[in-house]
Amino acid sequence: MKLAMVDDRIVPCEELDPVHFDRGLYFGDGVYEVLRSYNGKLFALDEHLERFAASLAAIRITNIEIGVIRARVLRAFETAGFANAKIYFHVTRGSEPRSHTWKPDLKPNFFLAIGEQVDHADEVNKGIAVCTHPDWRWKRCDIKSLNLLPNILARQAAADRGCEEAILVDDAGVITEGAGSAFFAILKGALQTAPLSANILPSITRHFVTKAAHNARVAVEERCLTPEQAAAADEMFIASTTKGLVPVVRFDDAVIGNGHPGACTLALLAEFLKFTV
Amino acid sequence: MKLAMVDDRIVPCEELDPVHFDRGLYFGDGVYEVLRSYNGKLFALDEHLERFAASLAAIRITNIEIGVIRARVLRAFETAGFANAKIYFHVTRGSEPRSHTWKPDLKPNFFLAIGEQVDHADEVNKGIAVCTHPDWRWKRCDIKSLNLLPNILARQAAADRGCEEAILVDDAGVITEGAGSAFFAILKGALQTAPLSANILPSITRHFVTKAAHNARVAVEERCLTPEQAAAADEMFIASTTKGLVPVVRFDDAVIGNGHPGACTLALLAEFLKFTV
Repeated sequence: MKLAMVDDRIVPCEELDPVHFDRGLYFGDGVYEVLRSYNGKLFALDEHLERFAASLAAIRITNIEIGVIRARVLRAFETAGFANAKIYFHVTRGSEPRSHTWKPDLKPNFFLAIGEQVDHADEVNKGIAVCTHPDWRWKRCDIKSLNLLPNILARQAAADRGCEEAILVDDAGVITEGAGSAFFAILKGALQTAPLSANILPSITRHFVTKAAHNARVAVEERCLTPEQAAAADEMFIASTTKGLVPVVRFDDAVIGNGHPGACTLALLAEFLKFTV
Repeated sequence: MKLAMVDDRIVPCEELDPVHFDRGLYFGDGVYEVLRSYNGKLFALDEHLERFAASLAAIRITNIEIGVIRARVLRAFETAGFANAKIYFHVTRGSEPRSHTWKPDLKPNFFLAIGEQVDHADEVNKGIAVCTHPDWRWKRCDIKSLNLLPNILARQAAADRGCEEAILVDDAGVITEGAGSAFFAILKGALQTAPLSANILPSITRHFVTKAAHNARVAVEERCLTPEQAAAADEMFIASTTKGLVPVVRFDDAVIGNGHPGACTLALLAEFLKFTV
């Protein structure tokens, strides 16, 4: 490609920042992580780096060392100095003229952004509303990739209906997970969540929620719920890295429980927070 | 987000080119087109702009005018001066701090790259090899979006097997299309291709191929083929904007026809090229 155009400006390609030719932009050819700190301490860094390594391997980005990523994350965290930091980072396959196949020796691009985690106590205290949306994602949702168009369209559709999260329902008619969160319901005292599969991101918060359930002596049943089963749940919550556990009090048109965060949910949240100190 | 990191360099976010915060990079939140010229004349510009408008609407990017896109494409084409130009352009929803939901007034980002179309006469003369790959794409492949990770992984897997294209096979066991092309087979004198649906990109070259078939008095049957049915085809070809019709002579382990480009395929190619003058 000899010339490029950015909005109305025509420039020779070689004068542009290589990020304009990032395969992450052309194809979503990259993987990412989000992690956070609680009161000055990074939470679950090892687990995030382990999942990141798995995502990189799954899309065949092989020439970047996890040790380098770790060092960069730690340096950014120390430099920024936020007690409750939210850290986003991604690695893309690199920058080159657009071509489906890639050069084997392409240098991957690393990008990180760090800011302060916004307080969401109000969501925890009152609970949030969620609504269902068809799961339009690809068949490898276990890879935390930059192909997130179905996720953001679902989340925006939920926001347009006054909901904080979209709960995705697959072609088989069962709930997979949230557009950007893991999904949990409590029925007859047992915690329900979908089993891990190629359709589900292996959520790190989900992992710690099941550990919290073990500590709180709450049974965990890995099974897929239909929206009808979920609507009849005694309690419901979603879980994500940035917000931990967030109680759900409305699911589509159904009020969950008594319309307030459930006791078991709050007990699990308290157990979960013990892991973060 | 207060600080960003690009490889090993830590910088305040506001000092970075906004392209680093492009939703196209974070989420693949954008749509694109590729078009070309033949001997100084842009081919099917109206059709590409019409499809682009449909893609923009499908992902709810509403604040950019197609007339502006058209003017930019024409200006880039005239400035570059290539007789056989290949033009890529995309529009993303814009640049902002990472958030699934978007600001309604966000200014979309436009990017275009133009270069010379590489000659591929050898592929037309000898025909190419293709191989099947599972169709891992999302459920809205009719939208020409930047979420192309399954496409590039399939194409690279094909290249690793010495093939020029991956032919995608869905969960129902039938061929949808190529990773970056439309797929055609000729059985008993009739041209076969999958009917348009949410799983298929409405290929503009496919449209002109069916017109070419009409002119050449070749019957067109829109139906889905299994790989077994395709392997038994008399002739086969793929079609894309940049390369037009490219004969296929090997499909997985099967030699197609006599191992040379088929007569009907070459007749359709000749008819197709009449549209480009």
